[in-house]
Amino acid sequence: MHDEFAKIDWLKKRFEKGTVSFSEVIVGIGDDAAVIDFGGRPTIVTVDAQVEGVHFRRDLISCRELGRRAVIAAASDVWAMASTPSGAVIALTLPNGFADADYRELIEGIAEASELTGARIIGGNLSHGHSLSITTTVFGLPEAKPIMRSGARPGDRIYVTGELGGAALGLALLQAGASDLENAESFVARWRRPPVHGRIVQELARCATSTIDISDGCLQDLQHVCAASGVGAVIYAKDLPKAPGYLKLCKTLDLDPVELALTGGEDYELLFTAPADAAGIPATSIGEIVRAREVQVLDDEGRPIQFDRPGYRHFS
Amino acid sequence: MHDEFAKIDWLKKRFEKGTVSFSEVIVGIGDDAAVIDFGGRPTIVTVDAQVEGVHFRRDLISCRELGRRAVIAAASDVWAMASTPSGAVIALTLPNGFADADYRELIEGIAEASELTGARIIGGNLSHGHSLSITTTVFGLPEAKPIMRSGARPGDRIYVTGELGGAALGLALLQAGASDLENAESFVARWRRPPVHGRIVQELARCATSTIDISDGCLQDLQHVCAASGVGAVIYAKDLPKAPGYLKLCKTLDLDPVELALTGGEDYELLFTAPADAAGIPATSIGEIVRAREVQVLDDEGRPIQFDRPGYRHFS
Repeated sequence: MHDEFAKIDWLKKRFEKGTVSFSEVIVGIGDDAAVIDFGGRPTIVTVDAQVEGVHFRRDLISCRELGRRAVIAAASDVWAMASTPSGAVIALTLPNGFADADYRELIEGIAEASELTGARIIGGNLSHGHSLSITTTVFGLPEAKPIMRSGARPGDRIYVTGELGGAALGLALLQAGASDLENAESFVARWRRPPVHGRIVQELARCATSTIDISDGCLQDLQHVCAASGVGAVIYAKDLPKAPGYLKLCKTLDLDPVELALTGGEDYELLFTAPADAAGIPATSIGEIVRAREVQVLDDEGRPIQFDRPGYRHFS
Repeated sequence: MHDEFAKIDWLKKRFEKGTVSFSEVIVGIGDDAAVIDFGGRPTIVTVDAQVEGVHFRRDLISCRELGRRAVIAAASDVWAMASTPSGAVIALTLPNGFADADYRELIEGIAEASELTGARIIGGNLSHGHSLSITTTVFGLPEAKPIMRSGARPGDRIYVTGELGGAALGLALLQAGASDLENAESFVARWRRPPVHGRIVQELARCATSTIDISDGCLQDLQHVCAASGVGAVIYAKDLPKAPGYLKLCKTLDLDPVELALTGGEDYELLFTAPADAAGIPATSIGEIVRAREVQVLDDEGRPIQFDRPGYRHFS
């Protein structure tokens, strides 16, 4: 059980037969977020933690960007249920000697993300600790009904918003001390400032059969969709959306651009599936859902590509 | 702003004029918990963090008790709004090498508390980190309307459930390596296993004018009630409820029993105020609310007692 997903599977089984309370749980552990009926309409609930030394290094990101990022990363799981963030509570652990100016900047970043996402900050908890951490619980309301990971069907197309691999490239540039290269700044910004999704949520509600946010790497997150839906997928490497300057900078850092786009984490773009005849979708088609239960990536000549690991996992 | 409450005040002001979203916030930052209307009935939301090295040392408590304690400490803020816990999401940060057996025990403790409190575990987040931490967001539903900190009126009596100082004594016994003294085990258990409140919630809904949970020390938490209500209080030291063996063990450890009862943290009992003519309240009256805006503690002869500090604060 050393792997993150093994730990989550065990949790899921453990709580499947939990006490039934008067809050009806519609979707429990295992999807991007839980769906609960508080006595009116279904509410989305999700929690995400950003931990110093694991999710960020303080010399690579400002406190304001960190606060902004923590809320947007959590909101991302709400968007990934075709839902709109409405509120958030935030638990902060601050190391001893954390400067007041840094605290204010952190909160300003949280406030900025609150306005950008629509998740109003309604409460929280302050504690000191060995390292800085930000744990954000976000609530949201579905546009129509929540879209899960489990609805992908053979023949569906696979779409992603924005571009892939940019955040991982930005982090690699920072870690290599190469953020002064041409175009590097936009990728660094891409890692520091994950995207805010708004209008796409209505599109998802209209036509998506399954959705997930890309936090641990496109391929790994797609595998979650396929596992939940009981299907497989084919991805076309040539169709992966890449930002201007991406290929050149990958080459400079000796990174494989396709591997980085498919396995680099923290893009916080949305991946979704929709029927092949759905029209006018403002996202890039990168492949299709198939009956065979495996996820294949094909190169420009149609040959399968193998990767060492499909994305980021804790505890492995 | 080095003090926890100064940091919270600043936060409260910062978010007072936040974006108004479609979730109506009824009570925001500053009470035990937030109250939000998700489109049906008011829902209580609160978050609490338990951080290794700050809230606990792993050599003093088992993983099972830790999991149980984390959920009950968070649920305590829901009870303190005269409300009943209904659901929870939990963010776990596990240090590298955290044993599977410990993980299972932690989850079993969380499950046990879930059943005891009625807070069904609906989701969570797993991350690794430098030290173990458990951040619990609990939801609940008010019995009638939520009772705040702000409703205490001059003439009201002040009540506490259970006994005071027992948890702090238990921790002191553990830290002194004195848990084999006579009666010590019950106080150690009192610290490790905070109380579950159930039926008292209906009583609070029936007659309480204000409520708070005693997490940072009775006196400090009472001061929060007085500040929010614009009143003061008189506490009678002789009326403080103490468990059997408490006085003798305090003496053995050279601890002042009144000071420990009033300023020792982590009792997780409920403090509330109710009109003097309210009958049949299953709790101990320890004093009364007065008009003069200060909190006084009187000894057996009616003389005021001073303490160095009223309770626990982060960052001070």
